[in-house]
Amino acid sequence: MNEADFIAALRNFPLHPGARGLNDDCAVIEVGGETLILTYDSMAEGTHWLPGQDMADVAWKLVASNLSDLASKGAEPVGVLLGHTLDGDEDRFLAGLQEVLNEYSVPLLGGDTICAKGPRTLGLTAIGRATHTPVPARSGAKVGDGVFVCGVIGDAMAGFHELTKANRARELGLEPEDADKASPYFAAKFLRPTPLIKEGQALARHVNAMMDVSDGLFLDASRMAKTSEVTFSLELDAVPHSSKFKDYASDGNQLDKSTKGWPCRLAACSWGDDYALLFTAPAKAQLPIECAKIGEVLAQTEHPLLVDGKAIASDELGYQHG
Amino acid sequence: MNEADFIAALRNFPLHPGARGLNDDCAVIEVGGETLILTYDSMAEGTHWLPGQDMADVAWKLVASNLSDLASKGAEPVGVLLGHTLDGDEDRFLAGLQEVLNEYSVPLLGGDTICAKGPRTLGLTAIGRATHTPVPARSGAKVGDGVFVCGVIGDAMAGFHELTKANRARELGLEPEDADKASPYFAAKFLRPTPLIKEGQALARHVNAMMDVSDGLFLDASRMAKTSEVTFSLELDAVPHSSKFKDYASDGNQLDKSTKGWPCRLAACSWGDDYALLFTAPAKAQLPIECAKIGEVLAQTEHPLLVDGKAIASDELGYQHG
Repeated sequence: MNEADFIAALRNFPLHPGARGLNDDCAVIEVGGETLILTYDSMAEGTHWLPGQDMADVAWKLVASNLSDLASKGAEPVGVLLGHTLDGDEDRFLAGLQEVLNEYSVPLLGGDTICAKGPRTLGLTAIGRATHTPVPARSGAKVGDGVFVCGVIGDAMAGFHELTKANRARELGLEPEDADKASPYFAAKFLRPTPLIKEGQALARHVNAMMDVSDGLFLDASRMAKTSEVTFSLELDAVPHSSKFKDYASDGNQLDKSTKGWPCRLAACSWGDDYALLFTAPAKAQLPIECAKIGEVLAQTEHPLLVDGKAIASDELGYQHG
Repeated sequence: MNEADFIAALRNFPLHPGARGLNDDCAVIEVGGETLILTYDSMAEGTHWLPGQDMADVAWKLVASNLSDLASKGAEPVGVLLGHTLDGDEDRFLAGLQEVLNEYSVPLLGGDTICAKGPRTLGLTAIGRATHTPVPARSGAKVGDGVFVCGVIGDAMAGFHELTKANRARELGLEPEDADKASPYFAAKFLRPTPLIKEGQALARHVNAMMDVSDGLFLDASRMAKTSEVTFSLELDAVPHSSKFKDYASDGNQLDKSTKGWPCRLAACSWGDDYALLFTAPAKAQLPIECAKIGEVLAQTEHPLLVDGKAIASDELGYQHG
């Protein structure tokens, strides 16, 4: 059973109304006169972080990925609960955790600490307060909306490739030479992503649908389109990249088999970890911050996602669990 | 670094006021005139469940252990977020999850599903609504209070021993014979614990301090005493057991090395998984349900816990992580 089947099975369970049919990044519950946003994300050793990676970066990413989910609902963080598995040496993890909580002024609420055998799994629950209701959902995209991205796509993929290129060189029987020197800019984008909290709050009142891009722009866009029962038509050239990534892509960097040899900019759209915000808004909306319009919302067709007018095959969409 | 050191380090972080200094089972947050209770518990394969164990029972225990934390705060469950790691075959896990959520009328709010390598770790966040404020804390025990237990101690330990006795017999070079037939009563108590939700709600307005007994009565009692800056004086004979456990204990069952050869009833007080409620209340409190008075709260001495007048060594207290 893969992730999609598992979640489909859970949809037959008794769901809280705030679960949004398990079609969203977060749960939304009304308490008293307020609206709380709840999210839960895990990271597993060997799957979500690289062997030997600095645990300070792992702690950062664990918190940042959850805060990014809150950002995509326009929420203000209230606190986090940490599910930690002890490693014996927690100093670097604690250092990174403190840095990220300080950076975003998020207090610790509690959690659980266990011992376990083998590769570890860390979990985090983040709680936020809605700054605008109705809270943006994945399901709200309307025919005629523009499709927008806040943030950039591709830096995280380049970071992963930079961090692993020495290993790839060795696999190809080459000497790593200066391949060991990963670009610090890209490495940081992969290791220490930035949750767009302020941007999410500024956008929440203007959008019809919003989510964060954690599993790849194409996959996440197709999920939003399906849940909204529409089709997204995107233009590859309109996808926003950092100037550093544009240089990187035009240098013809050789990417590994995980990108199936696709051109770098296309591959970046099927790669996760960017933590940009993907949203739709009325085409003439006056957005409070600069965002890239990457396409339009069309009436539903058999394909949830068109890129430059062509349907994207499901195995080209992005990272799918299991 | 062990669990205690890790939590001590976290206490230097920015904590939410509702984190209660990381000295409680749950976090307590005020939202829109209401009080929410949040808890997070994990279970790891090979540590918190036995190899080959029915995953339906694992799902039950994952939910029940979190609901027990809510029970200890007198909370009414609102919903749960599940952090699941895929195993390939999720049918039994899903069956058990549905059973426990139906049994306690708890809806699913959301969560996260991942793939990982090696033994898996599952996590759960449970959210509840306080039925009484102030919400009982671990830290509220007062000199002169009685110390009480709601529920019974020892059935879970007996269940574990019943479920593993065939393995122990083989380790000793004996034929398991009918040792393979674990007592269904005890096995169920270990595999499918009952969170005392109604009892916790009934008791909340009467207690000065309350927590659930998940790591062992002695260890949890010593934690409550320390956090409350008092000493608990307990009487071993007053600890409540089921009649089946009394028979089991008097049969002189040979326990394995995990109990260090202690007499069965003493060993049970150092063994977790009972999910009874431990609380203190004024000695003359009119409690709404029958509970066992197991001791008294004294002014703080150098020993947080006395049993039959004697201090208990720290390695006899119970299960400590890491």
